Amino acid sequence: MDHTAFPTWPDVAARLIAVAAGREPADCVIRGGVWVNVHSRECLPGHDIAIAEGRIACVVPDASYCTGPDTEIIEANGRYMIPGLCDGHMHIESGMLTPAEFARAVIPHGTTTMFTDPHEIANVLGLNGVRMMHDEALMQPINIFTQMPSCAPSAPGLETTGYEISPEDVAEAMQWPGIIGLGEMMNFPGVANADPKMLAEIAATQGAGKTVGGHYASPDLGPNFAAYVAGGPADDHEGTCEADAIMRVRQGMRSMMRLGSAWYDVESQITAITEKGMDPRNFILCTDDCHSGTLVNDGHMNRVVRHAIDCGCDPLIALQMATINTATHFGLERELGSLTPGRRADVILTSDLKTLPIELVIARGQIVAKDGECLVDCPHYVWPDSARGTVHLGHDLSETDFEIKAPDGANSARANVIGVVENQAPTKALQIDLPVRDGLVEGEGDTCQIALVERHRATGGVVNAFVSGFGYTGPMAMASTVAHDSHHMIVVGTDRTQMALAANRLAEVGGGITLYRDGEELALVELPIAGLMSDSPASEVAAKAEQMMEAMRACGCKLNNAYMQHSLLALVVIPELRISDLGLIDVREFKKIPLLEPQT
Amino acid sequence: MDHTAFPTWPDVAARLIAVAAGREPADCVIRGGVWVNVHSRECLPGHDIAIAEGRIACVVPDASYCTGPDTEIIEANGRYMIPGLCDGHMHIESGMLTPAEFARAVIPHGTTTMFTDPHEIANVLGLNGVRMMHDEALMQPINIFTQMPSCAPSAPGLETTGYEISPEDVAEAMQWPGIIGLGEMMNFPGVANADPKMLAEIAATQGAGKTVGGHYASPDLGPNFAAYVAGGPADDHEGTCEADAIMRVRQGMRSMMRLGSAWYDVESQITAITEKGMDPRNFILCTDDCHSGTLVNDGHMNRVVRHAIDCGCDPLIALQMATINTATHFGLERELGSLTPGRRADVILTSDLKTLPIELVIARGQIVAKDGECLVDCPHYVWPDSARGTVHLGHDLSETDFEIKAPDGANSARANVIGVVENQAPTKALQIDLPVRDGLVEGEGDTCQIALVERHRATGGVVNAFVSGFGYTGPMAMASTVAHDSHHMIVVGTDRTQMALAANRLAEVGGGITLYRDGEELALVELPIAGLMSDSPASEVAAKAEQMMEAMRACGCKLNNAYMQHSLLALVVIPELRISDLGLIDVREFKKIPLLEPQT
Repeated sequence: MDHTAFPTWPDVAARLIAVAAGREPADCVIRGGVWVNVHSRECLPGHDIAIAEGRIACVVPDASYCTGPDTEIIEANGRYMIPGLCDGHMHIESGMLTPAEFARAVIPHGTTTMFTDPHEIANVLGLNGVRMMHDEALMQPINIFTQMPSCAPSAPGLETTGYEISPEDVAEAMQWPGIIGLGEMMNFPGVANADPKMLAEIAATQGAGKTVGGHYASPDLGPNFAAYVAGGPADDHEGTCEADAIMRVRQGMRSMMRLGSAWYDVESQITAITEKGMDPRNFILCTDDCHSGTLVNDGHMNRVVRHAIDCGCDPLIALQMATINTATHFGLERELGSLTPGRRADVILTSDLKTLPIELVIARGQIVAKDGECLVDCPHYVWPDSARGTVHLGHDLSETDFEIKAPDGANSARANVIGVVENQAPTKALQIDLPVRDGLVEGEGDTCQIALVERHRATGGVVNAFVSGFGYTGPMAMASTVAHDSHHMIVVGTDRTQMALAANRLAEVGGGITLYRDGEELALVELPIAGLMSDSPASEVAAKAEQMMEAMRACGCKLNNAYMQHSLLALVVIPELRISDLGLIDVREFKKIPLLEPQT
Repeated sequence: MDHTAFPTWPDVAARLIAVAAGREPADCVIRGGVWVNVHSRECLPGHDIAIAEGRIACVVPDASYCTGPDTEIIEANGRYMIPGLCDGHMHIESGMLTPAEFARAVIPHGTTTMFTDPHEIANVLGLNGVRMMHDEALMQPINIFTQMPSCAPSAPGLETTGYEISPEDVAEAMQWPGIIGLGEMMNFPGVANADPKMLAEIAATQGAGKTVGGHYASPDLGPNFAAYVAGGPADDHEGTCEADAIMRVRQGMRSMMRLGSAWYDVESQITAITEKGMDPRNFILCTDDCHSGTLVNDGHMNRVVRHAIDCGCDPLIALQMATINTATHFGLERELGSLTPGRRADVILTSDLKTLPIELVIARGQIVAKDGECLVDCPHYVWPDSARGTVHLGHDLSETDFEIKAPDGANSARANVIGVVENQAPTKALQIDLPVRDGLVEGEGDTCQIALVERHRATGGVVNAFVSGFGYTGPMAMASTVAHDSHHMIVVGTDRTQMALAANRLAEVGGGITLYRDGEELALVELPIAGLMSDSPASEVAAKAEQMMEAMRACGCKLNNAYMQHSLLALVVIPELRISDLGLIDVREFKKIPLLEPQT
């Protein structure tokens, strides 16, 4: 069942009134629970929730007066009735899952609303890709609102994306039914410099009465920050310390605190509430990025709420930060985020407000999960060939494509090498002397080759460089079409033959991640949709991703988050050294530098 | 200067950014104040506010970096900087002043934003009248948002208004720039019964993404209330006790607590916060109705905030209830209601957060009042003849128009008499035996005549009846074209000649209030615009209204709020007995009853 046509409150107001007045029976009544009221911040035992047309008709001490013979009765048995959880900002692509499969994975965790920025597919497929994500999102039995990506490319002039997003694209998207605002405005220097393109995107969003997402990833809270705030972003999830959270809220933004698979920014910021006593209404919880393994093994927004409570936050405040605060931020406080009349009937039953077991999940009045099991169909969009065939290499690659020629007659060469740093997103810009064999510069020790293979326009372009820190040994190569943010293909390897095998394999399967050793494929994660996502269940994708991690370890890599490190090596907005389709980029100075230093 | 074209945030974002970044000087800097932050609920000493284009560019510890030689400096000298105060729901007509003169009266009290429902003029002039109010509102130097009136007539079938409001009118108005939502949905039985017209008005408002104002004037918090809430109203200001406030907030409405000239509903409800500890974010302060005398002598929203603090409310919470809570409710939290970047620069300087002296008022970056004196022009709309000539009597009235014929041969008659009750809006339905002289029933003792004179369509209709409780003695009559809600003319008098004089006088001056005794006019309040408002200053109107009260006392009336009692006698939605152009209405049963009981 496609849920795109979910009726509005006015569509069904007459029915809701009739039920609340007792003139017509409800479709469903949840009986005898503790009403967790996020408006008043109270727990109110002994309440029933009457539901009709997927919305809440009334919440009353005894709904027997609006219960008929065909009314479905759900016994709360004294359990807490809490609103379905909202993820204030996230990227579905980070789970390497389609919206449908992501939804299927998070529904048992009680997530019933997500605000998702399909930034990755925007880089690959542009506005069309955003529309496909948006359309699949609207088909789901839970609420997935789309934030229109603002920054594709993320680093104009330093990379070539598959498509670019323009202010005209933003203005068009603002008319779509599922668009809730502008996705994180990452170009914070651009905003602080009043870049006309960025301001036009913000203006189109504000003009449509929608919410401008922020992303200010700098510890500088001086005039640069003030200028960014004056530009209009309404929230920010890039804060990492208490001062960040405090400053954002004082300046009239909402502070989004994230716990993702590799983000840990709740504990360090929540003290603004728990210790400094700030009004909590402007704080919101989110995940930003969750891998499928996290969804399968640890949870989603329930994990974030539990964590906030573990950090000393009052459970009711923690729940507000994952329900009504989020809804209010996006102008949806009369549509969802609380258990009150007219709102979508998104309800969780739980026995304990601190450990938060998600025992029953109801979305739009329908039971969608019970005891960890998803009980609802999450319909798949029919992804067109244009979305399924996005790895365009131009020609079959061979080992020669990965050769790095040494200067004539050189015995060694000093290379600018990307240095991976354990547990950090920033890299180091290293200079390492490497040997020359048969006229080619070769990796050595922990320094191996990296290639950025153009895949959007079939230019046949391959940019070769060196990377250090993975610890790979033996002839191997790993390739991925998840390569933030422009999502070309990154191939890292100790052996050019293996590199060619890996790259060609991804072209064959339409994208994903593969690892070859000695001519054998040790692991493969197929991501056929835009080279970013799978439409297989999260458990399968998580299992394959785990196999991939094992394969990386088998090849000598000991990094935590090794795959993430791989996929971020083309992210030319984070210092110090990155690779793009245009060459090696020094992100400290936002300029291209040569691979090999001139010989002295 | 007409302020209709105040630029939006995106219009001036580039300038705000340049100022915040220090690249361009601010227009104005408020220096060295305590930043009252309603987002975080904190007082932060030692801050400057930089203003450009009428909006806040930044709030920083030291704005000297964005101060130039032409920047106007306002020294806060350590005083509190608080956001301009917002009135969450009110009727400008209650002040008997035009929007311009109302604004001029309240600006020195620190009110910089009002949400006003021109319900009265809607009854007289329909959608056109609403548009005139809306247009004058937008011309003002402060923010006056219009709530589209929902219920004209208030009591369909029991009265004839000058014009009616239809769902189509509501849909049209939602497109106007200054319309913020639907005005109080008073027809609460209609909503609870799913009246299609009322639901269509609500749907048009919700469809436009705007706020539906509520008005549930009943102590019944059972299924009738639940049904009303399910219909969609988002707030209610009719609560009178703690249970009302609590119930509204729990059900996802905002509780508006009012202190008007004759409303005292803050003290009885604010204990929901101060004693029950409910999250205060969903409580809002408002005035609903203020007479010009209150504005001149006591204040406006500053009076309400002070009162809330006197009731034990934390001053910062009280201020939130008159600033950011209100702004958030109407979807304006990024436009006004706090002192943060991008918002309209509406700022009050005050030395004390409890007594709240309003020392300096800045609206949209301009000093508009200082030490109680308004320093800004409040432009007048050019009210057309259609708005200035609204008293259409059909013919000059004479004493015969007010004769009440007795049944043939009767010596006395038993009349249904409207009994005024001291300090209450409801009346009593009395039955009193009255004498007959020369074939006419005559008032006696404290029972005198009342007439409802049709004034919208010049039908010449006069409905005569009796009223008891004013205490008038001697030959006198008082007439008023303020006659809630259909605003025909109410004439109350002991003498038919005086009644005719008074009625004809109001036709002559275009509406207002007059009192005649022994052929002499003791007092006159001219209300030439729609018969409801004056475009003279509040002080003049207040002085004339005070003169009117003295004249009433001189004629023997000892009632508190005597004039209000007079003007509510046609309000056919409040029990028990009222008069309308259709006859005597028993509001307990919503039906017309005869003036004289049949002879036994």
